[in-house]
Amino acid sequence: MADRANELKVDGTRLWASLMDMARIGATAKGGVCRLALTEVDRAGRDTFVRWAEAAGCAVTVDGIGNIFARRAGRDEALAPVLVGSHLDSQPTGGKFDGAYGVLAALEVVRTLNDARLETLRPIEAVSWTNEEGSRFAPAMMGSGTFAGEFALADMLARTDAEGGTTVGAALAAIGYDGAAPAAPRPVHAYFEAHIEQGPILEAAHTAIGVVTAIQGIRWFDCRIEGMEAHAGPTPMAARRDALLGAARLVERVRAIALDHAPDGRGTVGEFRVHPGSRNVIPGRVELSVDLRHPDAGALAAMAAALGEAVAAVLADSGLGGALEQIWYSPPTAFDAACVDAVRRAAAEVGAAHRDITSGAGHDAKYLADICPAAMVFIPCKGGISHNEIEDADPAHVAAGCEVLLRAVLEKAEEPG
Amino acid sequence: MADRANELKVDGTRLWASLMDMARIGATAKGGVCRLALTEVDRAGRDTFVRWAEAAGCAVTVDGIGNIFARRAGRDEALAPVLVGSHLDSQPTGGKFDGAYGVLAALEVVRTLNDARLETLRPIEAVSWTNEEGSRFAPAMMGSGTFAGEFALADMLARTDAEGGTTVGAALAAIGYDGAAPAAPRPVHAYFEAHIEQGPILEAAHTAIGVVTAIQGIRWFDCRIEGMEAHAGPTPMAARRDALLGAARLVERVRAIALDHAPDGRGTVGEFRVHPGSRNVIPGRVELSVDLRHPDAGALAAMAAALGEAVAAVLADSGLGGALEQIWYSPPTAFDAACVDAVRRAAAEVGAAHRDITSGAGHDAKYLADICPAAMVFIPCKGGISHNEIEDADPAHVAAGCEVLLRAVLEKAEEPG
Repeated sequence: MADRANELKVDGTRLWASLMDMARIGATAKGGVCRLALTEVDRAGRDTFVRWAEAAGCAVTVDGIGNIFARRAGRDEALAPVLVGSHLDSQPTGGKFDGAYGVLAALEVVRTLNDARLETLRPIEAVSWTNEEGSRFAPAMMGSGTFAGEFALADMLARTDAEGGTTVGAALAAIGYDGAAPAAPRPVHAYFEAHIEQGPILEAAHTAIGVVTAIQGIRWFDCRIEGMEAHAGPTPMAARRDALLGAARLVERVRAIALDHAPDGRGTVGEFRVHPGSRNVIPGRVELSVDLRHPDAGALAAMAAALGEAVAAVLADSGLGGALEQIWYSPPTAFDAACVDAVRRAAAEVGAAHRDITSGAGHDAKYLADICPAAMVFIPCKGGISHNEIEDADPAHVAAGCEVLLRAVLEKAEEPG
Repeated sequence: MADRANELKVDGTRLWASLMDMARIGATAKGGVCRLALTEVDRAGRDTFVRWAEAAGCAVTVDGIGNIFARRAGRDEALAPVLVGSHLDSQPTGGKFDGAYGVLAALEVVRTLNDARLETLRPIEAVSWTNEEGSRFAPAMMGSGTFAGEFALADMLARTDAEGGTTVGAALAAIGYDGAAPAAPRPVHAYFEAHIEQGPILEAAHTAIGVVTAIQGIRWFDCRIEGMEAHAGPTPMAARRDALLGAARLVERVRAIALDHAPDGRGTVGEFRVHPGSRNVIPGRVELSVDLRHPDAGALAAMAAALGEAVAAVLADSGLGGALEQIWYSPPTAFDAACVDAVRRAAAEVGAAHRDITSGAGHDAKYLADICPAAMVFIPCKGGISHNEIEDADPAHVAAGCEVLLRAVLEKAEEPG
């Protein structure tokens, strides 16, 4: 078995062609993809995947939240399957690879096994999760979260789009993907997901494979800084209570907090609104957001504490008022050590340059990790850019990532019950 | 003459009553004033001033830009007059004192001289300048600037309001203040203007009188800082090109530049727009304004040079792009030493706590100083707040400022030709 598996090779050309075929569904003028969840375009993408999966001999089922499972039978159908997948929906101005790569790489694993007439002990299911992006319907990772029991199905089906016109349930029915299978946890032996990195690390390191060990935890904060509006001319520097000065100092502090937790810590001020925003008026109020991330829950908590101290110090030093509020916490996800090892070993076996990496973005694998051993394979994307129509990836990396995925899946699929 | 002048006292109660009467014209619900230039409300304010001035025995003339001159004859009508005044128009949400105080204090000077039956050598003219605020029609200080020859009359008459519907010329005609007198420079022996400080210095120092030595020069800049938008999660701190970080550092530098030129230097970042302004995206671009002020032209030029160096240094240190552009320069105005001395002496004579001060805001006196010796008298305003309906001043300060104005005017009005 091990010998035959080592001789396997995925068909990189076929995988690339499938990616490009899928990218034509919802293609944008700028070379990207707009395939919002549960639209007619999403239906076309799903239909294509289902047709390809059935052509590959899979049994396709759809669950109540629209997740699609394309199952390749194992030698022992009573054993829990290995799931492999990602999502087919995109951002409004998304790219060809975010999500689609993981789904079609899973399909390529199935096709490669078929070509080799290689039966695995456990069943393998290529999965397309519903609405990972959360662009049309909140929350993101809706399908995987419902499958993992994180979200209640009825609640999800009642969610409406931004216009408030359509529910998830109605949209699923309209495109014919309101499936009969229970959208609920069931035994899964392992889950693997291939994805573009959506960051610059692998490209900068000339590394084809990222062995994803964890998904960063995230804490989101809203901060309000209040000073006193006053005229720019008559007000002496010493008499000012400049809310923008305090906010500027906080931006520098947020950076310092992230650097104090290098290399994994991240700190970002993204929203930043200055009032009244008039050229000759000293700003009286700034509202800003802080996004802190770290793959270690303790380190992330320490960063949050440091942020609280930084806000207090900045306000006190600058004679300002204000408040800091944590509005969201997503705990870090540490992937299963054995699954991560399987990915690392697979990368070594195929001779691909690889390194451990943490994911800064959320993925369906986050929720799967709550109910089964899971891990991810990253490949570089050009310039680290994603959620953008210019999102791009190297065909060699696309093939290499699938090669790694195949070997990791095979290892778990041969584990006895 | 000097003995009799020293015995004079303005009638603070009468001046306050006139201020409150004028404040009823265009009164707002929040206790402020909305008397936009050349509106029917402005006409009512002008009519009231003209009626009071004629009742005080003045000969009233109006020039082609609507400036009103209420002339009290001198013993030698051939000598150039002393002008005293300010403006009656207000901001949309203005206060009772900004402008009106200077006009009605000038009228109180005339009334006080009348009560004392004291004739001056030179004529004295109480003046109300048209459209100082610039809220309805640009530019600000339109009347005094035209009188001083800074603006061409025909150009000013053709200016339209923000809606583009009404010209200054049509608005003047509609309210009956398109006067026959030339709106052009003529011999003026001296000009004095009383005004609220519009800043916190006098109040903080418990000082009733500001002896205004100069109006700050102003340089306005637009600055653009460009980095690279990227996702907050996957992008390592070291790989970021965060435009907001650069902009935050520039805010701190602008403050340092002003402090390097203490106590008179001022540096303000008032406009500050962050793109794309999304919570989990590293900002790719910030547009901000810088307002630098100093009463000394050389110091202001040095501040501008330092700003250029600061922008270059911040961009280089932070790996960012961008540009800095000066969009406006208003040179400093140093008031006439003899007029300033007259104000300082007058403050000493009336026993008022006083200190030298520079004006951070523009005033009609700025343009008058181009054609004649000029100076200003400041009084405190509550909390340093103006351009606000809660603008307030202490009746004792209102009276003291007028007392000082009276003595400074008398000194210049007795100077032989």
